[in-house]
Parts: sequence; C-alpha cells; structure tokens
Amino acid sequence: LAQELVNPLHNADIADLFELIGEDERAPLAEALGDLVSADVLAEMNDYVREDLIEVLDAGQIADLTEQLDTDDAVAIIEDLEDHEQLAVLAELEPEDRAAIESALTYEEETAGRIMQREFVAVPEHMMVGDLIDYLRKNDDLTTEFWEIYVVDPAYKPVGTCQLSWIMRVPRDIAVADIMKREQTLIPADMDQEEVALRFQKYNLISAAVINDDGRLIGMITVDDILHIVEDEASEDVLLLSGAGEGDINEPIRDSYVARVRWLIANLATALVASFVIWTFGAAIEQMVALAVLMPIVASIGGNAGTQTMAVSVRALAMNELTRSNTRRIIGREFRIALLNGGTIAVLVGIGTGLVFANPLLGIVIAVAMLINIVIAGFAGIFVPVTLDRMDQDPALASSVFVTMITDTMGFLAFLSLAVGSGLVNF
Amino acid sequence: LAQELVNPLHNADIADLFELIGEDERAPLAEALGDLVSADVLAEMNDYVREDLIEVLDAGQIADLTEQLDTDDAVAIIEDLEDHEQLAVLAELEPEDRAAIESALTYEEETAGRIMQREFVAVPEHMMVGDLIDYLRKNDDLTTEFWEIYVVDPAYKPVGTCQLSWIMRVPRDIAVADIMKREQTLIPADMDQEEVALRFQKYNLISAAVINDDGRLIGMITVDDILHIVEDEASEDVLLLSGAGEGDINEPIRDSYVARVRWLIANLATALVASFVIWTFGAAIEQMVALAVLMPIVASIGGNAGTQTMAVSVRALAMNELTRSNTRRIIGREFRIALLNGGTIAVLVGIGTGLVFANPLLGIVIAVAMLINIVIAGFAGIFVPVTLDRMDQDPALASSVFVTMITDTMGFLAFLSLAVGSGLVNF
Ligand SMILES: [Mg+2]
Ligand SMILES: [Mg+2]
Ligand SMILES: [Mg+2]
Ligand SMILES: [Mg+2]
Ligand SMILES: [Mg+2]
Ligand SMILES: [Mg+2]
Ligand SMILES: [Mg+2]
Ligand SMILES: [Mg+2]
Ligand SMILES: [Mg+2]
Ligand SMILES: [Mg+2]
Ligand SMILES: [Mg+2]
Ligand SMILES: [Mg+2]
Ligand SMILES: [Mg+2]
Repeated sequence: LAQELVNPLHNADIADLFELIGEDERAPLAEALGDLVSADVLAEMNDYVREDLIEVLDAGQIADLTEQLDTDDAVAIIEDLEDHEQLAVLAELEPEDRAAIESALTYEEETAGRIMQREFVAVPEHMMVGDLIDYLRKNDDLTTEFWEIYVVDPAYKPVGTCQLSWIMRVPRDIAVADIMKREQTLIPADMDQEEVALRFQKYNLISAAVINDDGRLIGMITVDDILHIVEDEASEDVLLLSGAGEGDINEPIRDSYVARVRWLIANLATALVASFVIWTFGAAIEQMVALAVLMPIVASIGGNAGTQTMAVSVRALAMNELTRSNTRRIIGREFRIALLNGGTIAVLVGIGTGLVFANPLLGIVIAVAMLINIVIAGFAGIFVPVTLDRMDQDPALASSVFVTMITDTMGFLAFLSLAVGSGLVNF
Repeated sequence: LAQELVNPLHNADIADLFELIGEDERAPLAEALGDLVSADVLAEMNDYVREDLIEVLDAGQIADLTEQLDTDDAVAIIEDLEDHEQLAVLAELEPEDRAAIESALTYEEETAGRIMQREFVAVPEHMMVGDLIDYLRKNDDLTTEFWEIYVVDPAYKPVGTCQLSWIMRVPRDIAVADIMKREQTLIPADMDQEEVALRFQKYNLISAAVINDDGRLIGMITVDDILHIVEDEASEDVLLLSGAGEGDINEPIRDSYVARVRWLIANLATALVASFVIWTFGAAIEQMVALAVLMPIVASIGGNAGTQTMAVSVRALAMNELTRSNTRRIIGREFRIALLNGGTIAVLVGIGTGLVFANPLLGIVIAVAMLINIVIAGFAGIFVPVTLDRMDQDPALASSVFVTMITDTMGFLAFLSLAVGSGLVNF
C-alpha cells in the first residue's frame, strides 16, 4: 500500500516525506518502500536524514547506489561517511568511478572540485554541427542531462562554450567553432562554491566548465546545484548572524546545542562588559532609580540600529556589492541614515522622558545618549563586518557579538556618564 | 578612452561599474560610453541605479531599448516607471510588444506572470524530431536562449517538456511525444515568485511553462532569473529580521531612513513595556543595586536565544521544511535545545554571580531566571513565526519585534520577581 501511494511521486517528494516524518518512523518507511528509495531519492535528501537511512546499509550496497549517480551526487553522499566506511565504499566501487570520486575528495569541501560532475560533453573545435549531432546520437553512454557542450583544444583546454539551442538553429555543415561563444566563465577547481554561485548569478550561466591547475577541462557545474548553494549560503548568513550555527532542523540536537550554546556564552562575556559599566555607576543608580528604568531603552534601540546596518553590510559583502572601491561612500551613506534615525528617536525619547519624569534635564540626557549610541551603532554595523571581511573572516559569523557588545556598552556608558556629567546625579 | 576600456567587458560588468561609482559620476559615464550602455546592460543593472540613468531618456528612447529585450526584462524596466511615463512608453511600443507588456502588467508584482518571458518554443505532440530540428533551423525569429521546448495539445495546453539534449540524442524519425517527459511542473501565472523558486529548487528545473487560468501555455520562466529570486528572497529574510527594510545599498537614503526608523520606533514601544516592568520593581533596585547591574544579562542572553530559534524557524518556514505535519516535532526539538542551553547558562551565571557578589541566593535567583527566560525564548522563537505564517503574514517581517519584547519583558520580570519572592529584597 505504501508503495502504491508513493509510486507516482517525484524523487524529491519521496525525499521530503522522509524529512517530514519522525526519526523513528524513517527506517520502517524505507523498508515498506523498498526499491522506491532509489539512489536519486537519496541524492535529493537532507544530509542528516540520509545518513540515518544509509547507516544500516553495508559498503557494497552504498557503492551500488552511488554508482547510479553523477559524480557530484555520489561525492555528496560519500563525503559524509565516517573515514573507515568511506574507504570500504571506495574499495567496492568500479575502478573508474573510484578514481573519479577519490580525485573529487582531494578538493576541499564546498569548492568547485567537490560540487562538479565528471559527466559532460566536450568536442574539438573543427567538428561540424552535423557530426556533433551524429556523435551525440550514437554514444549511448554520454550523460543525458546537459545544456551546453564545451569545445576543447587538443590539450583539452576549453576554448568555447556552445548552447544546445545554438547548435539546433544552424545547418549541419557549420563548424562548432563558428557558433560557440569564446568568452567563457571558467571555474578553477579550488574556487569556493559561494564565489562560483556569484559567477553563475552575474553572468546568467546554466553550466560552467571546471578546470584544473593546468587549465584542462575536468568537470562541469550545473545551475540546478547552484540554486541550492545560493539558498544555503544566504540562509547561512541569517543563521550565523543570529548565532544559530548551521540551523538545519534535521541536525542532531546535541550538535545544535553545542553550536548555539557557544554563542550564548560569547554573548554572556560581552554582557559582562556592559554590566561592569553599570556597576561602576552603581551609586548614581541608587540615587536615581529612573536611570535603571531607562537604560535598557538606550541599549536596546542602539542594538537594533546596529543590527540593521550590520545586516545590510553583511549581505552587500556576500553579494560583492560592497567592495574596496565603494566602502567610503557606503559608510557615508550609513552615517547619514544613522543621524536621521538617531535624531528622530532622540527627539521622541527625550520629550517623552522629560514629560513622564517631569525632569527636562533627564530628557536631554537620554536624547543625547540615544543619538550618540545610534550613530556609534551605525559605524559599528559597517566597520565590524568590513574589518572581518578584510581579515578573511566570515563577517556573518562574528559580527553580531562585537556589534552588540559595542552598542550595549556604549549605550550604558553614554547614558550614565551624561547623567553624572550633567549634574543630574551627584557622583 | 572610456569606450576602449569598457568594450571588452561583459554586460553584467558594465552594469556593476555603474553601481560601484558615485551617484553624480553615473550620467557622465553613461555619456562617455554611448552605445555601450545597451539594453542588456540596463537589464543587468540594479533597479535604483537604472532608474537614475533612464530618467533623462524620453519615452521613445526607453521604448526602443525595451524592444530589444525579452518580455521579462522589458517588464522589469517598465514596471518601475511612474504611471504617466509608463503610459508614454507603452504608447511608443510596437503593438505586439505593447500587448505582451500590458498583459504582463495585469499580474501582481513578484508573481510568475511578471517574471516570465513570452519568448519560448512550443510544438505539437505528433511532430517528428527531424521536423522539429528543421523548424528551429528555418525560423530565425524564434528566441535563441531556451533549454527545453514545450509540447502542447491543439488547445495550446502543455502536455510535456523536452530537454534539448534528449532531442539531439535520438534519430530524426522519432516523435517528440515519445521522448518528452509528461510529468511537468506547470506554473500558474498568479503564483508568487518565492513559491516558483521553491519548485525550481525542489524539482531541479531549468525552465518551466507558465499557464493561465484556462491552462493554456502563455510564458516561460528560466532558471537564471530564479537564481536572482532565490538570492533576493533569502536576503530579504536577513534584512527583514533585522528591521532593515529592503536593505539595498543603492536605495535612496530617505527610503532607507523611513524603512528603518519605523522598526526602531516599534522597538521603542516594546522597550517601554520592559521599562515598565523595571519601574514597578524600582524599590527593589534601590535596595539592591546589584539587580540593576545583572538584569541586562538576563534579558540580553534570553534575546539571543530567542533570535537563534527564530532564525531557524523563519528559514525552515521559507523553505517549506516546517509544515503543519512536523510543527509539533520541531517545537519539541527546540524545547529540548532550550533546556540544554538554559541549563548550561544558568549554572555558569548562577555560580559566577554567587561568588562575585558573595551571595548564594542571588546566584540561585539569577540562575532560575535565566533558565526560565531561555525556555520562554525558545518557545517564542518558534511560536511567533509559525503563528504569523498561519495568519498569512511574512514571519520574517514582524517576528523580531515580538520575540524581543517577550524575552526582554520576561527576563526582567522573572529576575526581579524572583528576587522579591525569594526574600532577597523586601518589597
Ligand atoms: Mg527536499
Ligand atoms: Mg557512473
Ligand atoms: Mg555533503
Ligand atoms: Mg543575472
Ligand atoms: Mg548535479
Ligand atoms: Mg559558506
Ligand atoms: Mg557566507
Ligand atoms: Mg550586478
Ligand atoms: Mg522591478
Ligand atoms: Mg534540487
Ligand atoms: Mg530572463
Ligand atoms: Mg518576497
Ligand atoms: Mg519571504
């Protein structure tokens, strides 16, 4: 019955089914579905869910499954195995597949060499369109999913790319060299996948040739895989900024706990700095408890303003829109926005406070503190990510902690020291 | 000279150049480059930068430019014009282009009907592969950029999709109907682009047929445009969560100010609730100023924990991974993580506070308050986005304000009321 219900579904839908049900229901469902849990279904599945399922398989079975896939999907499965399991599976593979996967594993995770497939079509420059079509018709073992063919020189270096539609639009006696595009975006095998994705977006690519150190064609990356990478990399930024680690809802609880508690502890450390500032002004607070009531407002809104600028900067950096050539201009832009925001909030909070506490000086003190903190927040929100980026650190990863520390500390410091300096309280 | 330097660049690079330089340098550069600023360059450009540039053009010039583009790119330019400008440009277009664009404009922004192109290849089912190739070779006015052809019945309803590679792999005397794939992902013209992008990701699509209410084929969406949509929609979530509005660094400062100050004011309102809680415990704080020193720690770490869960939930909702069928399981998961995080932080903060202030009861009070607040934060981080989603609100847009309000207020309330309730201070 389970088989009948699931049979008409797309592989991706079957994979989703496994992701949606509870962990203990997965193995029984896999058993009930039998062969419907194909290699393609596994390729579509979330890494953690798939790991769960293939844990029960032996090396021979895993090898059989991965042999049905393109190298990129096979590598995605094999790279997640424990070292000894990985060796066992590699030993079971056909020599050719084994060589392809071992070579892919020599590249770092999340680089072009890992995400490329080794199945692609490459032809020499002088080939005629007619011969090319005949070649495609005759060779049954070529990959069936390709959108462009690569034209290579005798050293197997790419000299052009040809969309299939261009080939179909011309007579048989035209040379491939005459219709191919010579300006191509070649991807070095060690390029980070995030950079690869940016090239795809910028140049509207459907597929791209991957080359090794010698400039020889060794693989192809297709846009359907890039779609997932763009989604993952952008999501990564949301999750890293919030300190949620990888943020995959299928991740084992232990891993999520470790990832998140680390940032909570980092946050604790920065909160201590802010507390220390408050502690040094303890006498002032004892004298006027209104300061304790109001100080979270200064810190909280400053933090929010800093987070706004930080989010804008982190995304602009990720999309290569914030570069050395326009950093100054963007800092100027954020400064002006900070002045506008700070001015507005300062007036609102200042007047409100002055009236509620019937204390105009308190209103002025909090207004000035707000303005100072929002402007500092604006600077921090752009300086921190840009500096991390120049130091080759991921700005999404650590910016939050620094920006929050700056806005909390400066908020309390500005407010409490102005309260003392203005004579509002005696210290 | 400018022309010589820029000539070898890709359209997308020329567009980037305009984005990187200052606002007042753009018009002079456009003049210096002349015809190099082609319609394709404009199509690659950021909306705000492009608007700046075409402001100086008259309706006839804009019409000439858009006529060189596919309908999706033409619509993207025309939809951003002021109403009267839009009418003037439409009046200048050839009747056929005009009809296509007017019909696209009848669909909502960010729906399939807006982002589709009207240029595609559709053939009848009984056509032979050989005839299809001849048809493509003869018809010069067909679009040149396509990756799949759609097979339609006599009523122009899609019955199958055929990748170009499949067509090139078979002899001329095979019917298209025999190699096409009958399971297709058809996109209704009024589907939101975010949903369209999810289909592309899930089913690894390169292009998809768009149908109208009658089920007739009216357009095609290609994956290169989906790549930008995935990036935009995911970025939107980072920016909305942080209250940064659209967050485009090319947006006019006034617009950025309005978008951001709104959220700062909303944040101000929620900060007032937290302040009110502190105010009601004013006497307790006067008695023991350590409470004022410590209370930001409880609120800040609770806020961070809430943000972590919220980011995970918002992304899972956006990717259709958090659905009605697994909400319970994911809430249970977040609850367990919150207990682990809360327990760890409670122990650390409790022991630290007890020692520093030589006051074990204060340590216990803050430890319990931390645990309570982190667990509440975990629930809020998932309940708020899920509830907004069920109410058909964008969870990325408003979640932050509610979650922050809950964690701030509950943090102060738990800590201060426990301080009073435990007899730490007399109230
Ligand atoms: Mg899936
Ligand atoms: Mg193979
Ligand atoms: Mg993997
Ligand atoms: Mg593009
Ligand atoms: Mg692939
Ligand atoms: Mg990354
Ligand atoms: Mg990144
Ligand atoms: Mg660009
Ligand atoms: Mg637009
Ligand atoms: Mg996919
Ligand atoms: Mg397009
Ligand atoms: Mg949207
Ligand atoms: Mg969204």
